[in-house]
Amino acid sequence: MVQKPSIPKGTRDFLPADVARQSYVSEIIKAQFERYGFLPIQTPSMEKTSTLQGKYGEEGDRLMFHILNSGEKIKKADLDAFEDNKLGRFTQSISEKALRYDLTVPFARFVAQHQNELAFPFKRYQIQTVWRADRPQRGRFQEFTQCDADVVGPIGPVFEAECIQLFDDVFNDLSLTGCTIRINHREILAGIAAYLDAPDQIVDFTIALDKLDKIGVEGVFDELRQKGFEEDSFSKLGPLLELSGTFLEQLDALEQMLTAHPDALAGIAHLRKVLAFVSPLQVSHLAFDLTLARGLNYYTGVIFEVAPPKSVVMGSIGAGGRYDNLTALFGLNGMNGLGISFGLDRLCLVLDELRLFPKRLTQAIDVVVLHFGDDYMSEMMPYVSSWRAAGLRVVCYPTDQKLKKQLNYANQVDAPWVVFFGEEEKEKGVVSLKNMMTGEDQFIKPEALVVRLQST
Amino acid sequence: MVQKPSIPKGTRDFLPADVARQSYVSEIIKAQFERYGFLPIQTPSMEKTSTLQGKYGEEGDRLMFHILNSGEKIKKADLDAFEDNKLGRFTQSISEKALRYDLTVPFARFVAQHQNELAFPFKRYQIQTVWRADRPQRGRFQEFTQCDADVVGPIGPVFEAECIQLFDDVFNDLSLTGCTIRINHREILAGIAAYLDAPDQIVDFTIALDKLDKIGVEGVFDELRQKGFEEDSFSKLGPLLELSGTFLEQLDALEQMLTAHPDALAGIAHLRKVLAFVSPLQVSHLAFDLTLARGLNYYTGVIFEVAPPKSVVMGSIGAGGRYDNLTALFGLNGMNGLGISFGLDRLCLVLDELRLFPKRLTQAIDVVVLHFGDDYMSEMMPYVSSWRAAGLRVVCYPTDQKLKKQLNYANQVDAPWVVFFGEEEKEKGVVSLKNMMTGEDQFIKPEALVVRLQST
Repeated sequence: MVQKPSIPKGTRDFLPADVARQSYVSEIIKAQFERYGFLPIQTPSMEKTSTLQGKYGEEGDRLMFHILNSGEKIKKADLDAFEDNKLGRFTQSISEKALRYDLTVPFARFVAQHQNELAFPFKRYQIQTVWRADRPQRGRFQEFTQCDADVVGPIGPVFEAECIQLFDDVFNDLSLTGCTIRINHREILAGIAAYLDAPDQIVDFTIALDKLDKIGVEGVFDELRQKGFEEDSFSKLGPLLELSGTFLEQLDALEQMLTAHPDALAGIAHLRKVLAFVSPLQVSHLAFDLTLARGLNYYTGVIFEVAPPKSVVMGSIGAGGRYDNLTALFGLNGMNGLGISFGLDRLCLVLDELRLFPKRLTQAIDVVVLHFGDDYMSEMMPYVSSWRAAGLRVVCYPTDQKLKKQLNYANQVDAPWVVFFGEEEKEKGVVSLKNMMTGEDQFIKPEALVVRLQST
Repeated sequence: MVQKPSIPKGTRDFLPADVARQSYVSEIIKAQFERYGFLPIQTPSMEKTSTLQGKYGEEGDRLMFHILNSGEKIKKADLDAFEDNKLGRFTQSISEKALRYDLTVPFARFVAQHQNELAFPFKRYQIQTVWRADRPQRGRFQEFTQCDADVVGPIGPVFEAECIQLFDDVFNDLSLTGCTIRINHREILAGIAAYLDAPDQIVDFTIALDKLDKIGVEGVFDELRQKGFEEDSFSKLGPLLELSGTFLEQLDALEQMLTAHPDALAGIAHLRKVLAFVSPLQVSHLAFDLTLARGLNYYTGVIFEVAPPKSVVMGSIGAGGRYDNLTALFGLNGMNGLGISFGLDRLCLVLDELRLFPKRLTQAIDVVVLHFGDDYMSEMMPYVSSWRAAGLRVVCYPTDQKLKKQLNYANQVDAPWVVFFGEEEKEKGVVSLKNMMTGEDQFIKPEALVVRLQST
């Protein structure tokens, strides 16, 4: 039966140029992770459902991909649950495993499981696929790669400073200038909520604050008003939203306003410590951002988010923060955590839009050797081997089709060089080397080819 | 709720040393694939069930992991099918996607789908995870990585010779000597079946032949007798099983015996052509093996299988062959195919057993910088950055815990060097560099550290 070939929605085929681009970015991230002493680990694509379920809130549970039990096990389907419309229980009766939803929960499980094999602080990086049954849109897929670096164990401000430096190093290596690393601290937000006499409404407060860019100061006030914030909150909040100056100047101003709120003061003091490590490094585009409130259900301290250059319309391309005791879910208590993550797909979109991918990426074949008959080709093989051993990427055309067709192939695969070996070349003991850019031909000893190509 | 952390059976966590080993092997394979002009592609982990189903025989369908439809879609469960014990139809009613079972069928789907974006011969490599609900055993997992290189389009014997050379190059790069590349040709097997007057029993014949190593010549005869082979077959078959001499000598002898069987002659002639490309390259351990009959349901020509060195008890570590028209399943006709595959997990087991992994693999951190207080550490940061920029992998200890504890950590992570920067060093404008192997300390200018470490 002939089928029209297609793939599930939200998934992608990567053609060679796509793979080259994504590898270019992930190799840079990987190299930097390693320089900062993060070690690679890998966890299974499939985790037990009990490991993942309930760890990502209701939305996460809903968007998780479940794996059907194999073979006869499916006979245990709980039809009563199905008929009672208890789809969760029905699912559990036919599925015990789910696909990884992120890399953080599997990492926590990993640390708890292997705690006796690890040295703490344990710095790990993990570049692997995750799956979410999300509605696909630009830069959002059901299957995508996360690039995470986390440390668990003893943590000091030097590590948080290193997160900032690591973001910066990766963007430098990608020649991506103009990113902004936004920073906030959960304790500062908690202190402000207390300052507004609404310590229990930190979530309402941060949700409104997060919209400042879109709806302006009055919009934020309106939203807070609806949530029951008193009018005198706004006279307190106003000046906070108008902080200006350098990072340190903003912290100074904030400190004066929040002097009665120990939470906030502790958060401010901590950010100062972090900055003390960063300043000498001259990281560019570091911004204190009071409206940054991502991941408040798990971040307990510093929060990071990286915005791409302003010329690109795109959400954050990196994020991270400090969390505590995540491994307690799996029975390992008292572990602190700190992690950052790069958005690989979005980074690729940004680099593409700004034309920052190196041109050489799509050039994957150096030489095509044309085929003038099996005898000629066979004579070439030891040379082809030596060229490959020297690192050249060489394709031998498989059959003696018309020259035009073979040259057309070399053009299609973007090979900069073509080698001929036919009667004339054999007599002379040379090969013909054709430069596909200029069209120039020259005779050359096959032993001299590598040096010739490396000299251009 | 505290959970005892564990992972599904047949899956694995990879600790840093495991990742390092597997990456070492896959990077070598990847580099060789690229030198032979194979281009990387990636396909989704999840394919439509209709793409995979029925492509791997009954066993494949049974061992495929199905993904449960998300959300409300599960309400379409076909309970009638369930109650009629039609589990296949029941599965179809709640699942539309399955996890990749191999890389070959997705590749065929990919080629048919993207045929207008590709240049033929299209040489692609793909190093990705596949999943099979197989019973786990040594070297066999439910989730594992395949390393495949295939070409579709025009194919000539030079490509088949390159497969052999590629196997050899990878094993050389791994310092793995003593592997045997076994070769056969489907047409030769077909010719022999005809020679035995049993042209339709090629499958019975090859299944019996495949057991020659285990059950001996008489055992093979017994099995064939039960399948209805005539006694006079055995007098014909005997000499075939006793071929000896070089590859070419065996082909000569075979040619004389099978002179009336054009299939066999064509297969022999083809192998000669392939060998003509290989011989000058001096590939070692190439063996003609009449009993090699893997994948006969899809291989149409040359068949390869690689056995590890005899000192290791392990199945094949590589395989491949020539197949035709695989893309026809997806509506693209007339495409020839040729591919090889490396068994990454088994290769790792073999290298481990033979102690062929380089020692440096597990050494992932070059320097640990000890922490004598945030002020000292902060002063070190610009130097730490410069060391990292030079490629060193550096961990800064996060807090000023007791020196012994910090040194213990450096030992645990196997760091060959430790850097101190405290009061004395600050006064002198140096750092202390400790060699963790010898215990030796020395003062050194921080600017001189990279050169010092590179000189050892």
